[in-house]
Amino acid sequence: MFQTTLEPRFSETDILGHINNTVFPVWFEVARQDIFKLVHPTLTHNDWPMVVARIDIDFIRQTQYGSTVSINTYIARIGHKSFTVSHEAWQDSSLVAKGEAVLVWFNYTQECSCPIPEDICLLLKKHLQTAHNN
Amino acid sequence: MFQTTLEPRFSETDILGHINNTVFPVWFEVARQDIFKLVHPTLTHNDWPMVVARIDIDFIRQTQYGSTVSINTYIARIGHKSFTVSHEAWQDSSLVAKGEAVLVWFNYTQECSCPIPEDICLLLKKHLQTAHNN
Amino acid sequence: MFQTTLEPRFSETDILGHINNTVFPVWFEVARQDIFKLVHPTLTHNDWPMVVARIDIDFIRQTQYGSTVSINTYIARIGHKSFTVSHEAWQDSSLVAKGEAVLVWFNYTQECSCPIPEDICLLLKKHLQTAHNN
Amino acid sequence: MFQTTLEPRFSETDILGHINNTVFPVWFEVARQDIFKLVHPTLTHNDWPMVVARIDIDFIRQTQYGSTVSINTYIARIGHKSFTVSHEAWQDSSLVAKGEAVLVWFNYTQECSCPIPEDICLLLKKHLQTAHNN
Repeated sequence: MFQTTLEPRFSETDILGHINNTVFPVWFEVARQDIFKLVHPTLTHNDWPMVVARIDIDFIRQTQYGSTVSINTYIARIGHKSFTVSHEAWQDSSLVAKGEAVLVWFNYTQECSCPIPEDICLLLKKHLQTAHNN
Repeated sequence: MFQTTLEPRFSETDILGHINNTVFPVWFEVARQDIFKLVHPTLTHNDWPMVVARIDIDFIRQTQYGSTVSINTYIARIGHKSFTVSHEAWQDSSLVAKGEAVLVWFNYTQECSCPIPEDICLLLKKHLQTAHNN
Repeated sequence: MFQTTLEPRFSETDILGHINNTVFPVWFEVARQDIFKLVHPTLTHNDWPMVVARIDIDFIRQTQYGSTVSINTYIARIGHKSFTVSHEAWQDSSLVAKGEAVLVWFNYTQECSCPIPEDICLLLKKHLQTAHNN
Repeated sequence: MFQTTLEPRFSETDILGHINNTVFPVWFEVARQDIFKLVHPTLTHNDWPMVVARIDIDFIRQTQYGSTVSINTYIARIGHKSFTVSHEAWQDSSLVAKGEAVLVWFNYTQECSCPIPEDICLLLKKHLQTAHNN
């Protein structure tokens, strides 16, 4: 499991006084940075090997400015051409949001998906976590 | 059905040369503006009656800078305390992304959900569209 | 003079109930889209000819969600290797913010500035406006 | 002097392969968080005492994804009703951007500026730095 800690930004609040819902996909992408480094250590963009196929987020509680957010991230599924990343955001000991992202192994030059290489599968498997309790 | 047209912003692109996935929740919230006006015409924040409980987005094709995006939005479900909004984003005659948002009728002072008022239900029903073809 | 009209986005508000200051550089870049099209009509990124060297923004009044913003944009200065774009944002007949951006003619492959081509200068000159009244 | 360290976010890159210029006002506001805590320790929004009157940013080098950015922040000027914050962003031992923000002491209820209280002046003075070398 990967853990990312971040401080909500003032500009991420909205007029309702909480963190705007559109900020969570950004935070969860920040949390995937550890997975980016795992499967593509150079982080170079001209051979970037993934594309986002789907995201979903459940908002459980309002998230506040002024208190640290901690995001737990793990691999929830490894398929032939795609894998699923699972995120949980916690603030002040409460689960505030959780969500998933499906990443497809992707060749940007040919604009097509391709099988996840075996060595990458092995790396991902180390972080595979099929069940978890909230 | 509501239709929103927008021009991708330069700052919404990313290093992979397309529109970043985190932009779509923002665009879909822009598209819900018509629904905000429908159910809360004043748009005043101190009595804002909704909170986002869930979003999901499927990314179907890469979206490019320099070409207009059109978003079709309709009500997909009306429940007792929540309703679901459905969005489809089109660019150059292709469906590029689709997603849903679940909005809960919400009292921010008491921090609790409440039944959708009957007059609001009637307004929403006019835009209810249970099946659609892509 | 170019004119851009935009509707403040819900996600662009902040906890103080107004549009967050960091949104204006985004809006002003949106307003420069007309200048991008003027000097680089294809909008292709692999031969993008400019880089931002400086921005400044004066915030004159608070900007509100729920009311259209109109941005007037013109060329304020044309130099040898750079030019200055000037923006004014209006909401409800009030000037809410104004600012400038200095754009340098730039070769991204060689990572160096270069003289603005004469034909581009001529295009820019048509939109040059050295004095203006608020 | 305050120091903020941050990791550029994937969504903060743009199609030109660098960090988009509109991200720096966000980062500099993140860097001002230390000053917010200094002059308004509760961070509560209903008595937030400042408003941004002006920002300017000079972009010195392109900023890249994949390498940490460090922001040095200090008070550059303390006036009667406003003060100026100065920021420098460094990446890989190079100054990549620098900028200032003018913050006005502000009463949001009365919508007017007011003198900076003496105790706040004293706090700010401890971080006043009138000259610096790059």
